[in-house]
Amino acid sequence: MASPQAAKRQKSSKDVPYELIYWPGIPGRGEHIRLAFEEAGAEYTDTAHEEGGIEKVMAAIDPKSTGDDLNPPTCAPPVLKHGDLKINQTPNILLYLGPRLGLVPSAEEDEDAVYKINALALTALDGLSNEAHDCHHPVATSKYYEDQTEEAKTKSADYIANRLPKFLGYFEGVLSGEASKGGEFLYGGKLSYADLVLFQCVDGVKFAFPKALARLEKEGKYERVFALHESVKERPKIKAYLESERRQKYSMGIYRHYPELDED
Amino acid sequence: MASPQAAKRQKSSKDVPYELIYWPGIPGRGEHIRLAFEEAGAEYTDTAHEEGGIEKVMAAIDPKSTGDDLNPPTCAPPVLKHGDLKINQTPNILLYLGPRLGLVPSAEEDEDAVYKINALALTALDGLSNEAHDCHHPVATSKYYEDQTEEAKTKSADYIANRLPKFLGYFEGVLSGEASKGGEFLYGGKLSYADLVLFQCVDGVKFAFPKALARLEKEGKYERVFALHESVKERPKIKAYLESERRQKYSMGIYRHYPELDED
Repeated sequence: MASPQAAKRQKSSKDVPYELIYWPGIPGRGEHIRLAFEEAGAEYTDTAHEEGGIEKVMAAIDPKSTGDDLNPPTCAPPVLKHGDLKINQTPNILLYLGPRLGLVPSAEEDEDAVYKINALALTALDGLSNEAHDCHHPVATSKYYEDQTEEAKTKSADYIANRLPKFLGYFEGVLSGEASKGGEFLYGGKLSYADLVLFQCVDGVKFAFPKALARLEKEGKYERVFALHESVKERPKIKAYLESERRQKYSMGIYRHYPELDED
Repeated sequence: MASPQAAKRQKSSKDVPYELIYWPGIPGRGEHIRLAFEEAGAEYTDTAHEEGGIEKVMAAIDPKSTGDDLNPPTCAPPVLKHGDLKINQTPNILLYLGPRLGLVPSAEEDEDAVYKINALALTALDGLSNEAHDCHHPVATSKYYEDQTEEAKTKSADYIANRLPKFLGYFEGVLSGEASKGGEFLYGGKLSYADLVLFQCVDGVKFAFPKALARLEKEGKYERVFALHESVKERPKIKAYLESERRQKYSMGIYRHYPELDED
């Protein structure tokens, strides 16, 4: 990643608050970015809480846009604006913010840490966010859930039976491994943004599939994963954030609770 | 990203060939890594062409593994081994290789280029690789295509009607934008690994949905995207690679051709 020197040089040339451009009304993928800001105590603005926020999101992802001289157009939110820079893709924004917010080890402490942390974040987002979304929209992103309920039931049953245990088991393995340095955090014995991502993913699937998750938690095979979810929730800045009005409620976003998709 | 100094320091301490661990028999997600190696003329080994290659892949993603002292376990291939480092996730491996193989501008030339290029690669992989895979496996990753043919038809129709034009249109916008510096490459007037990713994605969807792609190409709305596919194909090292035995044929991987999923 940027060497600490580069990050510092960058920071001084971009000495402005971060701007998060994301839909109002749901935590969604923007939540991963918010949790990083909140844990770090960073200054940021958020279109979810601004008047005209939706218009700002629409402008940022206008399919007719070709971007500007510095930045390619951005296809989908979340989008991060920082000074002249405008980037999207959740794991990419976290990659940019990681060294700036102190949520990854510096290159001098641990040169390849960013690649290990990025892989963990990508895997959590794949298995516990994107696939959880596909449970309620398996065959047509552009149609309503009500137009694909049967397919959603099939997909959710497979997700609960096969995919959730696979990914929870994978992260339990990560937390049981030596590279986690103790099993409290995913990597290196210190909080990184990958822990915040996993927290939010577990939080989301708990909302979407409460019965399945309660059973999986009771089975005791993923103790470290559920413990991480609890311990991140209790971190002072995260706790204050979750209790604030800045934390939006789950509704019709990535994580949706349809009782008919959960197990009995 | 790692500063050029860091990359150089790294290289000397890892002065061994790169090892790609991926399934034999399909280009798959491993192909994105191969194309980067081939374009750069890098020295690498590939389990796809080794005896016992499958066992090496199985060992690398053993669900019981907890990794080692340095590396968390890896959940799915492709996996890259480089010296002591072992990482997975296609866009993450490319991120690691980019500065080492000269497939992104150095941090000194263009400090934030890596984040723009990473976003482009992630978007191509999301829309033109992962979603293309989901067309033949929309409701159950663990079941056969034959068990979800009807759902696959619904998904593929939506993909062809809505998602393919969205993503092809997005990349046409990128290539039409000022930040592409001329429209031959996605960013900055120079080949980056994002161009190789987009090449392989377009190549794959052309194989999977030949009729739909022939129509979309004829419509003329995505000229720059199809031109990029052609021009990457003709790059001397890529051309030699594609004609070699190292390039595996599409079959039962991410990109599959089922005539009933294509348009009429």
